[in-house]
Amino acid sequence: MNTAAKPHRVVIVGAGFGGLETTYRLAGAPVEITLIDRRNHHLFQPLLYQVATASLATSEIAWPIRYLLRDRKEVTTLFANVSGVDAAEKRVLLEDGGSIPYDTLVLATGARHAYFGHDEWEPFAPGLKTLEDATTVRRRILVAFERAERETDPERRAALLTFVIIGAGPTGVELAGTIADLANDTLPRDFRHIDTRKARVVLIEAGQRVLAGFPDDLSAYALSSLRSLGVEVMFGEPVTECAADGVVYGGKKLEARTIIWAAGVRASRAAEWLNAPADRAYRLQVGPDLTVPGHPDIFAVGDTIIINGPDGNPVPGIAPAAKQEGRYVAETIKARLSGGKLPPFHYKHAGSLAQIGKRLAVIDFGWIKLRGAIAWWIWGIAHIYFLIGLRNRLSVALSWLWIHARDQRASRLITQGSSKVAS
Amino acid sequence: MNTAAKPHRVVIVGAGFGGLETTYRLAGAPVEITLIDRRNHHLFQPLLYQVATASLATSEIAWPIRYLLRDRKEVTTLFANVSGVDAAEKRVLLEDGGSIPYDTLVLATGARHAYFGHDEWEPFAPGLKTLEDATTVRRRILVAFERAERETDPERRAALLTFVIIGAGPTGVELAGTIADLANDTLPRDFRHIDTRKARVVLIEAGQRVLAGFPDDLSAYALSSLRSLGVEVMFGEPVTECAADGVVYGGKKLEARTIIWAAGVRASRAAEWLNAPADRAYRLQVGPDLTVPGHPDIFAVGDTIIINGPDGNPVPGIAPAAKQEGRYVAETIKARLSGGKLPPFHYKHAGSLAQIGKRLAVIDFGWIKLRGAIAWWIWGIAHIYFLIGLRNRLSVALSWLWIHARDQRASRLITQGSSKVAS
Repeated sequence: MNTAAKPHRVVIVGAGFGGLETTYRLAGAPVEITLIDRRNHHLFQPLLYQVATASLATSEIAWPIRYLLRDRKEVTTLFANVSGVDAAEKRVLLEDGGSIPYDTLVLATGARHAYFGHDEWEPFAPGLKTLEDATTVRRRILVAFERAERETDPERRAALLTFVIIGAGPTGVELAGTIADLANDTLPRDFRHIDTRKARVVLIEAGQRVLAGFPDDLSAYALSSLRSLGVEVMFGEPVTECAADGVVYGGKKLEARTIIWAAGVRASRAAEWLNAPADRAYRLQVGPDLTVPGHPDIFAVGDTIIINGPDGNPVPGIAPAAKQEGRYVAETIKARLSGGKLPPFHYKHAGSLAQIGKRLAVIDFGWIKLRGAIAWWIWGIAHIYFLIGLRNRLSVALSWLWIHARDQRASRLITQGSSKVAS
Repeated sequence: MNTAAKPHRVVIVGAGFGGLETTYRLAGAPVEITLIDRRNHHLFQPLLYQVATASLATSEIAWPIRYLLRDRKEVTTLFANVSGVDAAEKRVLLEDGGSIPYDTLVLATGARHAYFGHDEWEPFAPGLKTLEDATTVRRRILVAFERAERETDPERRAALLTFVIIGAGPTGVELAGTIADLANDTLPRDFRHIDTRKARVVLIEAGQRVLAGFPDDLSAYALSSLRSLGVEVMFGEPVTECAADGVVYGGKKLEARTIIWAAGVRASRAAEWLNAPADRAYRLQVGPDLTVPGHPDIFAVGDTIIINGPDGNPVPGIAPAAKQEGRYVAETIKARLSGGKLPPFHYKHAGSLAQIGKRLAVIDFGWIKLRGAIAWWIWGIAHIYFLIGLRNRLSVALSWLWIHARDQRASRLITQGSSKVAS
């Protein structure tokens, strides 16, 4: 940069798909970037359920943020918790008392799972958003089998071998299919007193179908595929209680020691920080240029916003959408710096994918719908392609090869707690 | 087994190198085995320092115990905490109140790090024995660099960039060399405000040389190699205090925020359980047939015992020794079952190896001594050979290739705590 003027300061909060893409796409622009995240790693969330089910190791789907940006001298990575935004002073406030000045701010702060007013369910039904969430779920699943092996009471043993997944979107479907594979194919020979193939995997969906975002025929295919894996799918009744000993849905109690929440998310506190309008899930309502109303210098992208796509439906909370938004924001910042302006953000839906167990998938590209083994191969290749770096691609390919060829899952580790850990 | 008699019940406590080897070598014997461990995984401890320094992922050096024994129908794996032994009733007592009867008992319960009467040092100077220890040390090292990046006070920044390792045995030397590599080669380009190459790595040894178990010339080579990596090695003064802000040794305070303990271990509580004679490090004194005096049906192996080798020195606490003992115990059990008897245990020392940074090692095979790059290659091949299974061998080889070719360490993850975690 040979500009004598002070470079424009861009602060980006969150190094998920949206924040990282914004940073990448600002390469070469006359800006100074501060990228803040409370984690030191970027996480490939679409495969997080595979860590939770012992299929992949944590480091296979996470990269140090600094490492990804090591050659971008104008980018400073900050490992810190943001506590708010002072929009008048144009500063991002940090929990440790510090603050970072910005000329342009990009909020890419993501979402957490939400319990719709039942936060008290969280200890019993953990969700899946961070690496720790995933290793927690993994520990609970593996400990449940261990405890079942030693349990002599048939009812308690049955409850230990019942795995309830709440919510049949992609994450719920992927979790249910993979837990079924784990119980049916990976674990049976390892235990002496239980038949892990008799484990119940119950997928509960308050709506009327699985993968509601997909076309009807793919939903139906996913449902029959799940059932052929042995997953019990329940429709049309919401869960009305989660507790240590099971769930209640449709007025009936289902005894279960392992419950996983895949039923919904709420956005980060970004709307609160700005006192800006948000929907019920706390998602910021942004303008057509992805700025926050009344704050032309504050953009927001990814799971923390709600915006409608060209079909009139909300843009889905998926990685490709966050990346398109990040790219748009970067281009807008560059255009503004050279005195230009961009047309409104236009979302292009590239497709929806979901894996069902280790050999099947469904894909909706819009112009073509695929299902079964061929869809699984495209799903697998696409996911390996989107991983960062040759090393992780090789490593994940190796892990999947072992799952396919030998049903061996590399990461069946119970950590952060010995055998005394309650499930 | 076609024997009509009730099979002989062998209970093995601990699935480390000794316990697992005993179990392997009992294959085909007319026994029924219960293998108890409070972890669900066997850990390849010789490479644990590589997890602590972000070089390897946890799952690359750990295997589910059940998986390793899935085809041994006569082996039951129990994920439980042992609380004691009732030698009169011949039962192993479990913490949850249960108990397991045995005809022959094998104690392979290992060791923990020991602070020589200063247990209050543990929070400030964690040791390295479990996967959680390793991810804790990894988090502290990585968080120290993160905090240094944001620290403006030069003294506090220097303390954050000072890493003290106490004890210059193989683990201490390997940790010091790898942390130096991390600071010198992996991290420099990632940070903007600190020069990670200026980090101080201080190795403190109360004795007179590093790798005291090795011949003098290899010790001297290790010392000069460490120094050429930039490690400061201090001799002859013990550490007299560990605290949150540093250590005191030789009456001087060294300000440091990261301290790692590699100075000593104490055996498990096995001697206490049996009220049996032990040395100062709680190691059980066993007879020449590895049975506990007064308990001919109780064997003990590995780090939990003290026994002299043919050279009159204690058998070292290393994996090959534990495996030789495990094999001997298995053979003795088999011999006894067919009415026979074995000569006393005879330890054969195969060699000592230690890595010094990413390209050098020292090896003492007795008949030949090796050092430098050639020793590193033998060290690497030997360790890959001793890993279990093709998948982990490929995976570790891949990780090491990336470290060598690109200085990229795959597992630089700060987990179990966000940026607020104190170091």
